[in-house]
Amino acid sequence: MEVMKSREEVTNAILLAKVQKGITWKEVADEVGRSKEWTTAACLGQMAMTKEQAEKVSSIFDLPESALAWLQCVPQKGAHGIPTDPVLYRLHEILGVYGLTIKELIVEEFGDGIMSAIDFKLNVAREKNEDGDRVTIVLSGKFLPYKTF
Amino acid sequence: MEVMKSREEVTNAILLAKVQKGITWKEVADEVGRSKEWTTAACLGQMAMTKEQAEKVSSIFDLPESALAWLQCVPQKGAHGIPTDPVLYRLHEILGVYGLTIKELIVEEFGDGIMSAIDFKLNVAREKNEDGDRVTIVLSGKFLPYKTF
Amino acid sequence: MEVMKSREEVTNAILLAKVQKGITWKEVADEVGRSKEWTTAACLGQMAMTKEQAEKVSSIFDLPESALAWLQCVPQKGAHGIPTDPVLYRLHEILGVYGLTIKELIVEEFGDGIMSAIDFKLNVAREKNEDGDRVTIVLSGKFLPYKTF
Amino acid sequence: MEVMKSREEVTNAILLAKVQKGITWKEVADEVGRSKEWTTAACLGQMAMTKEQAEKVSSIFDLPESALAWLQCVPQKGAHGIPTDPVLYRLHEILGVYGLTIKELIVEEFGDGIMSAIDFKLNVAREKNEDGDRVTIVLSGKFLPYKTF
Amino acid sequence: MEVMKSREEVTNAILLAKVQKGITWKEVADEVGRSKEWTTAACLGQMAMTKEQAEKVSSIFDLPESALAWLQCVPQKGAHGIPTDPVLYRLHEILGVYGLTIKELIVEEFGDGIMSAIDFKLNVAREKNEDGDRVTIVLSGKFLPYKTF
Amino acid sequence: MEVMKSREEVTNAILLAKVQKGITWKEVADEVGRSKEWTTAACLGQMAMTKEQAEKVSSIFDLPESALAWLQCVPQKGAHGIPTDPVLYRLHEILGVYGLTIKELIVEEFGDGIMSAIDFKLNVAREKNEDGDRVTIVLSGKFLPYKTF
Amino acid sequence: MEVMKSREEVTNAILLAKVQKGITWKEVADEVGRSKEWTTAACLGQMAMTKEQAEKVSSIFDLPESALAWLQCVPQKGAHGIPTDPVLYRLHEILGVYGLTIKELIVEEFGDGIMSAIDFKLNVAREKNEDGDRVTIVLSGKFLPYKTF
Amino acid sequence: MEVMKSREEVTNAILLAKVQKGITWKEVADEVGRSKEWTTAACLGQMAMTKEQAEKVSSIFDLPESALAWLQCVPQKGAHGIPTDPVLYRLHEILGVYGLTIKELIVEEFGDGIMSAIDFKLNVAREKNEDGDRVTIVLSGKFLPYKTF
Amino acid sequence: MEVMKSREEVTNAILLAKVQKGITWKEVADEVGRSKEWTTAACLGQMAMTKEQAEKVSSIFDLPESALAWLQCVPQKGAHGIPTDPVLYRLHEILGVYGLTIKELIVEEFGDGIMSAIDFKLNVAREKNEDGDRVTIVLSGKFLPYKTF
Amino acid sequence: MEVMKSREEVTNAILLAKVQKGITWKEVADEVGRSKEWTTAACLGQMAMTKEQAEKVSSIFDLPESALAWLQCVPQKGAHGIPTDPVLYRLHEILGVYGLTIKELIVEEFGDGIMSAIDFKLNVAREKNEDGDRVTIVLSGKFLPYKTF
Repeated sequence: MEVMKSREEVTNAILLAKVQKGITWKEVADEVGRSKEWTTAACLGQMAMTKEQAEKVSSIFDLPESALAWLQCVPQKGAHGIPTDPVLYRLHEILGVYGLTIKELIVEEFGDGIMSAIDFKLNVAREKNEDGDRVTIVLSGKFLPYKTF
Repeated sequence: MEVMKSREEVTNAILLAKVQKGITWKEVADEVGRSKEWTTAACLGQMAMTKEQAEKVSSIFDLPESALAWLQCVPQKGAHGIPTDPVLYRLHEILGVYGLTIKELIVEEFGDGIMSAIDFKLNVAREKNEDGDRVTIVLSGKFLPYKTF
Repeated sequence: MEVMKSREEVTNAILLAKVQKGITWKEVADEVGRSKEWTTAACLGQMAMTKEQAEKVSSIFDLPESALAWLQCVPQKGAHGIPTDPVLYRLHEILGVYGLTIKELIVEEFGDGIMSAIDFKLNVAREKNEDGDRVTIVLSGKFLPYKTF
Repeated sequence: MEVMKSREEVTNAILLAKVQKGITWKEVADEVGRSKEWTTAACLGQMAMTKEQAEKVSSIFDLPESALAWLQCVPQKGAHGIPTDPVLYRLHEILGVYGLTIKELIVEEFGDGIMSAIDFKLNVAREKNEDGDRVTIVLSGKFLPYKTF
Repeated sequence: MEVMKSREEVTNAILLAKVQKGITWKEVADEVGRSKEWTTAACLGQMAMTKEQAEKVSSIFDLPESALAWLQCVPQKGAHGIPTDPVLYRLHEILGVYGLTIKELIVEEFGDGIMSAIDFKLNVAREKNEDGDRVTIVLSGKFLPYKTF
Repeated sequence: MEVMKSREEVTNAILLAKVQKGITWKEVADEVGRSKEWTTAACLGQMAMTKEQAEKVSSIFDLPESALAWLQCVPQKGAHGIPTDPVLYRLHEILGVYGLTIKELIVEEFGDGIMSAIDFKLNVAREKNEDGDRVTIVLSGKFLPYKTF
Repeated sequence: MEVMKSREEVTNAILLAKVQKGITWKEVADEVGRSKEWTTAACLGQMAMTKEQAEKVSSIFDLPESALAWLQCVPQKGAHGIPTDPVLYRLHEILGVYGLTIKELIVEEFGDGIMSAIDFKLNVAREKNEDGDRVTIVLSGKFLPYKTF
Repeated sequence: MEVMKSREEVTNAILLAKVQKGITWKEVADEVGRSKEWTTAACLGQMAMTKEQAEKVSSIFDLPESALAWLQCVPQKGAHGIPTDPVLYRLHEILGVYGLTIKELIVEEFGDGIMSAIDFKLNVAREKNEDGDRVTIVLSGKFLPYKTF
Repeated sequence: MEVMKSREEVTNAILLAKVQKGITWKEVADEVGRSKEWTTAACLGQMAMTKEQAEKVSSIFDLPESALAWLQCVPQKGAHGIPTDPVLYRLHEILGVYGLTIKELIVEEFGDGIMSAIDFKLNVAREKNEDGDRVTIVLSGKFLPYKTF
Repeated sequence: MEVMKSREEVTNAILLAKVQKGITWKEVADEVGRSKEWTTAACLGQMAMTKEQAEKVSSIFDLPESALAWLQCVPQKGAHGIPTDPVLYRLHEILGVYGLTIKELIVEEFGDGIMSAIDFKLNVAREKNEDGDRVTIVLSGKFLPYKTF
């Protein structure tokens, strides 16, 4: 039986199995009992799973034994550079065009500090609209104030 | 009277006047009659104003005559590279950690296509929470499908 | 039978088979029933195919079973950095020399907004000319206006 | 009277005067007797003008004496890096998504060689369309074959 | 009287005055009533001051009226790229050599999460040592756990 | 028996074995007789081990014979670029926000010179705190003065 | 028999065979009936060969069947970034030191336009010299004038 | 009288005077008594002049007194990055396409070593040709062999 | 009297005065009583001077009063990126070609550790040689061993 | 028997054999009859060997037959980017801090020109010192003057 040598190998095996079995991320999320956003991020190697979550995911995707341990590890997170895929680039462009606006409005409302990317939730949804349906992405993070010391 | 030679000079003059006069972006938005998000982006040089909007902004910030024309021009938009400011970087990090997740979920819901960054609305709000208030950022863009030809 | 582990492997297999079988992109496009531009882009891993399109392409290039699923997936699109190949670099150079001109003329004709790269069609053709034939590349994209909100 | 020390200063003076006088690029092109595409590129510092063209442009924009010489010089052309402005970025993205497709189709039609970016013409136009008007950009360059030696 | 047009100008004025007056950061910190670390960072344009703090700093360095407002603004924080100064580079090198070690040990002790850079304190001190005195830098940040959702 | 061809292969084998055996870095450090910080860095390929240390580590992780020699070699140290993992990035951000502050305070206390990254010790610890436990990272390096010559 | 999966594999096989057989580029060029400059570039994967040329090269280097097709394909040309090899870097340095000089002299002699890199010939030769022999590199390309339109 | 504070200022003053006076580089070279290639490079700030050469150049371009000293200094030479101007980029592209070819042929003819960029001469000339005149650029540098030691 | 606003301004003033007065670095070093290497580095803004050294340098170059304080400050040291000047690039190239060799030989002689760049001396000298004089650069730094902890 | 497909493979085989056999670079140099500096650089793939040298090195490290040819080839030399290993980075830092100083002193002593990196010798030695032994690195290269033409 194949031994998985890195988390990336596990992620690739999940992507391949998903294509071949025709599973949706929502179905995986329902099995795991978490949101589709968190579950997808965890399967893509950005979050660590509990033993139970890892077992369910291994079972759904028929992963080899060695994958179980990797799914419970804390992975190296994030992505390098500026994305070229049009879906991802639009998000990067929104950050370029509206980033300072977001900072100005957070500071005006809360004072000096940030929106946490750790105590954080994400929601991606379809918004019905007569002029064409829209994608709604909600980012929700705890405000963390800078403290003087 | 000073002649403004670029949109950047106008933006700097607005930022300076805002500090000295203690004006908030919400107050500017109320005068202009647009959302605080669009109005702030326009004042920061990312959107073009109508003649009426430009006159109101010029009046609020006591800008010189030459600023009026610049405010109505379509500016060079966006920002280069990866931001270092902690508020902006957190947004960049969220894109690195959850970007592929967002793409997978858009594709699962809508098929191949993107969330428009042009037919787009932004909302930044405070969300009351017992464990500490949260920042909620809502991105809403029209779904645009790739067409075969 | 070999299992294709990524879309890149499928793309390479297509390129290899195309060389060995001496097939042209136009012939592939005729089979698929789409333009030579869209068909080539899809074969090169930039577009997702329908089941029928994927079956035809698999048959033309004798691809293994596992390729079928990959051809129907939405791929990671785009290319990193600035190209070094002379054909591609000339297009990049044209963007450097005439890019601001194109923006100025779009804005003058339509107002603030962009030419969509999603609701988009491409045509590459030969233009007969006594001083030497010319390449004509037509880019056609829907105008999308920025909306205030 | 102010002495212009570089071509960039002349370009900036043109942009400022255009805003203040409300002149369109088409009007400039009609005066100069060239296409709106070439004329705009020349005004933006990417092409060299003849003495007559330079005099007309100087007169339209009320440029100082020293600008005349600069307008007739061959400028440093092109632009560095990858653009952030959404209009320009879409063109860059099209090159990333369809660039190899364009190369494959040129080679299939003409053999090994390039589309010239020097013996080159550009046209930007509005295309009427019921689903929303479209931007059409036509690139036309002489095919130049690689020669063996 | 000179009008300061940016926070950077204020920072430069502070640095110049510090040199000319021979003031130490510790003396400034004592006046401001905060640690030498926070006070120095604030004077260098990385933190926002209260009105009282800004007035004290303005008085110590004889800053012009317009500096007062800038000192109370939330600045753009951080620094681009990899530093070349030997003192700063050593810190960057330590991150390269021991960074993964730090992550492994935080995860082993706390589980998946980060050390906050916002709810954060810094201390720089001299440690007496017979083999040559040492610099001790203590970084203390709240542990923030990733939450599943 | 597999021959390890590089230090990276040894590092990967250690990481894989650690996951599969459920060993903690502290347990490794206790066996080796060094701090958990140095031991982890050495296992991750940033430090050279003595023969005895290498034998213990080989035994703990069941490494093949050829690993023994690699563990005693002086490795290529450090890491390229700016990290994307949130734990590591926070340390990079702290260097951007407080780096010049640290330099100013070292110079004020010691004169011109640096904190050594070679004659250096690291400690990572949990600090109990009612508002949430904190991570404390202590960097201790010998001060090295620049000498005139 | 081994199937070559890319042009790079063919290039590597040529380089390896050249070393093992002790063949010179001049001998290859004589067989192919082209200059040593073009022949070397074609063997290194920068030019496409005719069927006859490909057969001769395959025979000289004992390449497998599948190499024949690749040698006739139009390759991806060029090289990324700034070279580190001293021979190549000297050429890059010459471009940095004398590049603007070359442009000024071409413009002074021909007007606005370029030296073609496509309708182009290269010659590398030894020049006898008492103070030490010299390398002479002759670049000859057709002048292409910019055309107004 | 204006004091020139850097070599760049002197270079800019030369470029401006050249435009306004309509002087050619060949005329300058004839006065200086050197080739047009060396003279242009020296005027553009890449070579140091003797006192006599500097005086002639100062006189031709009516430079202020302080320029005399700068023209005799050894300047910082070279240029950063990859050029965007089409004339310069073609030379860079030639290096990408034919660079390894040049290295292979130098090594085949001379053994391991380089073409000097210091003991070096450049010639740019027009080559008459029925199919359109050509630009000929001759690079001639002393071969320098690597020595074992 | 002009107020110098940064160390860079002081460095530029020194370079300008050196050109105009025809002073050599050796003469400055003799006045200051330090080596020509350290003195040059200090004048170029890479080292901090004592009050006496600063007074001598100010007097030699006729610097304004405000320069005195800057010369005694600890400057931001180092330089960004890879140099283009041929003298500096050769040193960078030597590091690329022989860097790993130097590391291997230091480790072989001393064990794991570095040559200090702080407890460091530099000497640049002419070496008489019949085949042409040579430049000899001697780097001497204290060996610093990595310590386990 | 394994066929080595590139010089890099040979280099890796040497490094592995060196570790396993416990050979020092000095011992290799004594066998080869060259300095330890040149011999190490040649083994690390930066220099070409003669047939005799290659045979000795092959014999010392038990390399396969195919390695013999590669060792006699002229390799691609140099290294990309800025090194992260502390030993190498210190040399890079020295170039940043003292590079301009070295240029100024070479120019002052010799006039405009460079220290050759080709007609070049390197020596790495231990210098006994009571305050701790020092590493001495001597770079010796022929001075090459720029020639006017």
